[in-house]
Amino acid sequence: MATTGKQLFTTLTADGTLTLEVVETTFREPTGNQVLVKMEAAPINPSDLAILTSAADFENAEYSAGKVVAKMPEPFNTGQKARHGQRLPAGNEGAGTVVATGDSDMAKALMGQRVACVPGMAFSQYAIADAAMCLPLGDHTAEAGASSFVNPMTALGFVENAKIDGQKAILHTVGASNLGLMLDRICREDGMPLVNIVRKDEQVAQLKAQGAEWVVNSSDGDFMANLRHAIDATDAFYGFDPVGGGTMVDTCFKAMEQVAVSKMKEYSRYGSTQPKRMFIYGRLDMSPTTLTPSYGFGWTLSGWLLTPFLQMAGMETTMRMRKRVLDNLTTTFASHYKSKVDLDGMLMKDAILDYRRMKTGEKYLVTPWG
Amino acid sequence: MATTGKQLFTTLTADGTLTLEVVETTFREPTGNQVLVKMEAAPINPSDLAILTSAADFENAEYSAGKVVAKMPEPFNTGQKARHGQRLPAGNEGAGTVVATGDSDMAKALMGQRVACVPGMAFSQYAIADAAMCLPLGDHTAEAGASSFVNPMTALGFVENAKIDGQKAILHTVGASNLGLMLDRICREDGMPLVNIVRKDEQVAQLKAQGAEWVVNSSDGDFMANLRHAIDATDAFYGFDPVGGGTMVDTCFKAMEQVAVSKMKEYSRYGSTQPKRMFIYGRLDMSPTTLTPSYGFGWTLSGWLLTPFLQMAGMETTMRMRKRVLDNLTTTFASHYKSKVDLDGMLMKDAILDYRRMKTGEKYLVTPWG
Repeated sequence: MATTGKQLFTTLTADGTLTLEVVETTFREPTGNQVLVKMEAAPINPSDLAILTSAADFENAEYSAGKVVAKMPEPFNTGQKARHGQRLPAGNEGAGTVVATGDSDMAKALMGQRVACVPGMAFSQYAIADAAMCLPLGDHTAEAGASSFVNPMTALGFVENAKIDGQKAILHTVGASNLGLMLDRICREDGMPLVNIVRKDEQVAQLKAQGAEWVVNSSDGDFMANLRHAIDATDAFYGFDPVGGGTMVDTCFKAMEQVAVSKMKEYSRYGSTQPKRMFIYGRLDMSPTTLTPSYGFGWTLSGWLLTPFLQMAGMETTMRMRKRVLDNLTTTFASHYKSKVDLDGMLMKDAILDYRRMKTGEKYLVTPWG
Repeated sequence: MATTGKQLFTTLTADGTLTLEVVETTFREPTGNQVLVKMEAAPINPSDLAILTSAADFENAEYSAGKVVAKMPEPFNTGQKARHGQRLPAGNEGAGTVVATGDSDMAKALMGQRVACVPGMAFSQYAIADAAMCLPLGDHTAEAGASSFVNPMTALGFVENAKIDGQKAILHTVGASNLGLMLDRICREDGMPLVNIVRKDEQVAQLKAQGAEWVVNSSDGDFMANLRHAIDATDAFYGFDPVGGGTMVDTCFKAMEQVAVSKMKEYSRYGSTQPKRMFIYGRLDMSPTTLTPSYGFGWTLSGWLLTPFLQMAGMETTMRMRKRVLDNLTTTFASHYKSKVDLDGMLMKDAILDYRRMKTGEKYLVTPWG
């Protein structure tokens, strides 16, 4: 018996037309290690927006029931030419109930269970998912489990990566995001000092209220002095940044180097020997990252993505991380949502203009059955 | 008996006054593993210019015999505040004859020998050097041995670093520099494909004449296509850049990613999984490095310096590299000089304005005894 349901698709054509539409779809039977999940909740993460909205003009788009057509400006249209003409599903992660399985034992064992999953097509009433990536949620609600992969595993991944690299502390440039608050809780549990950078006094208060020790506000006049002090006190020469564009990475490298230079006995034209490491794990700002020649040659900047990190860390570490997430789903790894929308609601002008801004702490949850 | 001779010093004061002067100096006796070298030749490398000229205004400086006083503009003056008021020697490397030694066996064995050395005060008639870093030159002239450390060990270091990192090929953004020509010779000896980027047709011809296989001219209209073709043919996802400022690193990452994406079967919003690695090992351009969001998250950019690399590679590798340099000093590792100047000549307006431009293939050699 064929399963049908609504699914969201995103299509960009060579002329720069981006179409988002909710389409009645027939889902094939899962095979092998696959399961078919009746989706109940899926978060809209910044990583979803890359193919959902990107830089398209949604102010002046054509809105109709279950459909939006918007123009993608250059250079963003040409930059995505690899997807031109492809009708892509969207939604990295979510939670729902397994209603059919392939014939592997792992898949069959999930039949009837509520699971968190990472199908890459979570903005849908049904999704085909890999059983190996499903996390049985037990008595937890789908809403509680919907965001149990991307943010929790990324935040945990930072701490695991820091430990692998022998670091004693971490710096995070967006301390008050959902992920940032989670990272702060993980770091305190693990005794790993964390320097949080935020932009507003309310965010300082929010982090302090949950117990954060080091929070510096980039809007303060003495931001650089405060940042240096926090780095000096914690040895945080290892940081993560989801903004990408602009000067924040540069600012962090500068502060790290100034702390290191202040401890040097002799001047060196090459800067300090203190290794300084920053990772860009998102691109909330699409403008160029600028790096000035202000911190010698002892620095490294990398892109950071969860999947290659998990491959590097190995299956055992990944399983340990997932278990920790499940064991602490409604505490350490709890996510909060500003609004809930159904699939058609995702494509309403007010909603798109709101969630695409990716404002700190204002995440949307999609409930595909309303 | 005290040894006296002329030595160059560079002093920057808090008000932004940079003074370069040749001063009659008394040199202390070497102790332990030190040797006193009567310097005969020393190259002016870009790394020396960081403390010698930096960004000071030598067009409008005050010139007198053996002395120049120039103004250092902001932000470069504040950026170097760690050296304010310090009278610094200059000159990383050179060659000369050992005229006195400390009492270690290693030092005593060098007495009377012509050596290449890395004293950090090579712009001087005498220099105290570490015996462990001295390379006995045998019958080679001081001029042949003067540049036997910085460029040869850096170029060899790139190849060693690439091998340690399991790379099959290298990219170099300034193919026709002294170091670039050397790197090309090393890579061909080692069967390591090298993609050379140059800016002029003459430089293409120069590299081709010495046997280079892959040379692309960034001034050509089809530069990007040629660069992609060279990367595709060689698998050069690992490059070195001495320019630092501007967009060259970004361009290399873009070309690497475009090659990797062209081989992907499925579109990914995160870009290719091909790791892309660039190193900035100099700062010929002090403007900011700009990185655009055009190559996913599978990239890493680092500063690269010789000393930390040698420490990481270990003494055995370092010794093997030095022996290779000595064995091939006038062939693979030969350097060429545009002009020779003595210490006073280094401080003449025409000379400073010329060597500070660091033009490709126009290196100066200092002969402190004239």
